[in-house]
Order: sequence, then C-alpha cells, then structure tokens
Amino acid sequence: MARLQKVTLSQIKLTASLKKKKYRRLESLSIAEGSKLAAEALKAGIPVHSVFFTAEAAEEHSGLVELIMQRQIAVFSCSPSDMVRMSWLKTPPGCLLVYKTDFQPPPREGGLLLGLYQISDPGNLGTIIRTADWFGVEKMLLSEDSAELHNPSVVRGSMGSAFHIPVETGVDLSSEVESLKRSGYKIAIAVTSSGRPPFPIDKKTALIMGDEMGKLPPEIEGLADIKFTIPRKGCGESLNLAAACSILLYVLTGKTNIIKD
Amino acid sequence: MARLQKVTLSQIKLTASLKKKKYRRLESLSIAEGSKLAAEALKAGIPVHSVFFTAEAAEEHSGLVELIMQRQIAVFSCSPSDMVRMSWLKTPPGCLLVYKTDFQPPPREGGLLLGLYQISDPGNLGTIIRTADWFGVEKMLLSEDSAELHNPSVVRGSMGSAFHIPVETGVDLSSEVESLKRSGYKIAIAVTSSGRPPFPIDKKTALIMGDEMGKLPPEIEGLADIKFTIPRKGCGESLNLAAACSILLYVLTGKTNIIKD
Repeated sequence: MARLQKVTLSQIKLTASLKKKKYRRLESLSIAEGSKLAAEALKAGIPVHSVFFTAEAAEEHSGLVELIMQRQIAVFSCSPSDMVRMSWLKTPPGCLLVYKTDFQPPPREGGLLLGLYQISDPGNLGTIIRTADWFGVEKMLLSEDSAELHNPSVVRGSMGSAFHIPVETGVDLSSEVESLKRSGYKIAIAVTSSGRPPFPIDKKTALIMGDEMGKLPPEIEGLADIKFTIPRKGCGESLNLAAACSILLYVLTGKTNIIKD
Repeated sequence: MARLQKVTLSQIKLTASLKKKKYRRLESLSIAEGSKLAAEALKAGIPVHSVFFTAEAAEEHSGLVELIMQRQIAVFSCSPSDMVRMSWLKTPPGCLLVYKTDFQPPPREGGLLLGLYQISDPGNLGTIIRTADWFGVEKMLLSEDSAELHNPSVVRGSMGSAFHIPVETGVDLSSEVESLKRSGYKIAIAVTSSGRPPFPIDKKTALIMGDEMGKLPPEIEGLADIKFTIPRKGCGESLNLAAACSILLYVLTGKTNIIKD
C-alpha cells in the first residue's frame, strides 16, 4: 500500500474546529467517522475535502484507502492522539472523512414528501432520515429552527442516508405546505390525539410531523387533509417522534411497490 | 411554601457519584431529572431516596415540592452550581430526583412479551421502553450485556415508562426463550432479510429483537415460530433498532383491544 502523507497541524486544527456548529457553517464542511460511513460518502459521490486514518485503521481498511487515493482525494495518516483531537466520538474508529456540506443528492421520484417542524434532537433526526430512506421518501423538508442536518450525530444516526436522500433545510414550512397543497399534494399531519388511525395513502402526499412534543403551528394544522394518530394500546403519554414517524411511514407506504436495487 | 433544607456536601458527592455506573450499582440508586420525570416517578410509586431543587425550580414547581413533602420524602434546596455538579444534563432543569433501583413495577397482563438481545445504545433502549409501554407490552426481558436499565439516559428516553413497565434484566435469553416456548408462547423474531412481512398476532407471543446489527444467537433463531422482516420500499441497508421495534409492536398489536386509562 502506498505510504500516506502525514497530517499537518493546520489540518488537525481545521478538522477539530468542525466540532463546533459555527465552524461547520463557516467552512461548509462536516465530518463522517468510521470506515462504513466514509464508504457510504464515497459511494454517494458527495464532495470530499480530506480523509484521515490512523496507521491501524489504514491497514484494516486498505481497500478503502486505495479507493480514496484512486479518486485523488487528499488522504493523510495521523497518530491516535491526533485522531482523538479531531474526533467527535468517545472511541474514535480511526477513520475520519471531512466532506463539503454544499451538495444536494440527485432528485428522486415516489410522491411521498416528509416535512419536519422544529425537530430538535439530532438522534431523532438521524433515525428519521434513515427510516425515510428505507421507505422511499422522495424528499425531506426541515423547517427553520430544526436540528442541523450536518451535525455529525445526525449523519451518523442516518447511517449514511443523509448522503442519499434530498433534504431541504431552513424551510418556511407553513408557506411550503400551502404551495404543496395548491400543486395537488394531499397534506397529512400527525397529531397526538383525536386523529384517524393511519392507513396507506396514494401518491403525492406530504406527511408533516410536529416537534418532539407533537406540536405544529395552527396554520399547518388548518391545511391538513388528513390527521393521523397512532392508537394507544397500553400506557404512556406519547410516542417518541422518530418512533411515531417510523410507524406512519411504514403504514402510509403500505400500497407502494418495493423498489429493487 | 415550606422552606427547604439546604443540601449537604455529602449529599452532593453521593448524587454526583451516580454519574458513574459503578456507583449506581454499588448504591442501588439512580437519578431522574426534570419535574415531569420526577412527577412520573412519584405517580408510579417507586422508592425515592431524595429530591433536589434549585430555588427557581422549587418556585416554578411548588405543587410538586408540596407533594414530595407530604409523602415525607427527603427534599433539599441547592444552588445552581451544586445542581450542575449533580446533574447528568448539559442544561440542568433544576429538579433532580434520586430513586432506589431495586423496585419492580406491578405485573401486567396482555400476553405480549418483548425480549431484547444485547441492545447497546441507551437512547434506543429508552425509546423502546416508551414504545413498549404505549403498545401494552406485558413485560420486557433484557439479555445479559445489554445497556443498563437505570442509566439516566434510558430512563429519560423512556419518559418515565421505565417506572411503569416490568423489565427483567441480565436474562439468559436463550434459555428463557426455550422455557417460554415450552409454556405455550409463540416465539416471533425480527430478522433483517427473508422474513415474512409483519402481521397482527394472537396473545401469548414473545417478540425477540436482535442487537443493533439485527443479530440474534443461532439457538434463539432456531426456536422461532415466526420470522418477521419489515419490507424495504426505498434504499438503505437497514432500519434503526428502535424504529424497527416500533413498527413491529404497532403491527403485532393490531388485533388487541385498546386499554382505557
């Protein structure tokens, strides 16, 4: 295997700075850690800035290193302590990829849109992106004041689906829902009580989920064609947002065909 | 409102020590933060060791303070900086309850058991407990080497359902599944491919979920009466464990009656 160039101090500093949202925004860069997530980024063809490996990880994932070098992406070796400095994780996996956040995955078809209103938890957002990808959601819409799409916890929780599924961020969800309705979309919303049990829907539907408390602004509620509530069979006050969203996407896509790879 | 006693240094030290799993185990104590979770603990009647409030939180939640005092539970005031020292959270909500972990919620009926094999992520475990409660799961079984039930992130993620639903921990899941099968339970397992799409089940079923990679030991796979796979309609390699579990619990309980509060 070709010898890797050594990381420089300025590269370490730049990468470590990406732990802060401010610098991720300023530099339009974020990080994806672990060989699996790095491989997903390469597979999706998103723009890569640089990749870092510890000696141990480079040896373990030599095929990945070769692939990165073939693509003429800047790849560097670093010490385990440099990796700790750059890593977002408690136990760094030894492979860290820095990517440019100003990309948009290719558009998809399918007819089901998913809008999230002020989702605040990065773990929930990552899980929802992964689930939306699984159920073939065409596009996601993230309202203003939502968790940051390129927060490394979101991308990690999405298992790379954040590299594949088109997501619009900073969306004024009320006007967007209005304009979707005008262009023929059915508007389905999730409500914590008094809605109908979910059922499979036809194409051209936008499912809009409220925040972690299940809240949606009244103007979006007012535009809803269907309100869904997941029936409670036991106890508890509510379902977790990602859990509720998973159930709704499963049921709503019940009629659609399975896309073969 | 009655004046609260001031927290002592030894109480602060004891509570702060509970951030470590070792001390949670040694003391059989753990913490639940926030007025909502504290109220859930009281409602569930679990054994409470002590409760701490900042002055601001005590004023805001004076009803809760009264209730705690009526129950003759030790309750103390502390400064915001003492609270930071004891708290598990970045932004402490100002109310922290210490409870004894050696309790078991009252048994339930329902016929659906949920077994988790080596679940490692506290966030996933908390979400699954909350979802299991919502769908009326009778009892949960956590295998050996699973995330700790009384990790404060689990209890928080469960939104208090961990105080309500019976959970057996450290279970030898293979022998338990064998003995459940002998006593007439149907064994349903989740597999990442080649299983049947989920459908509603009759009573007396144990649903067993694998670890975060979907893996189950072969002896449990061998005991399965039904293998379920959630059909993929889009892309991605897999679903998040808590998302998959939510969908399965929703579908499996499709036939059961809704329990009224």
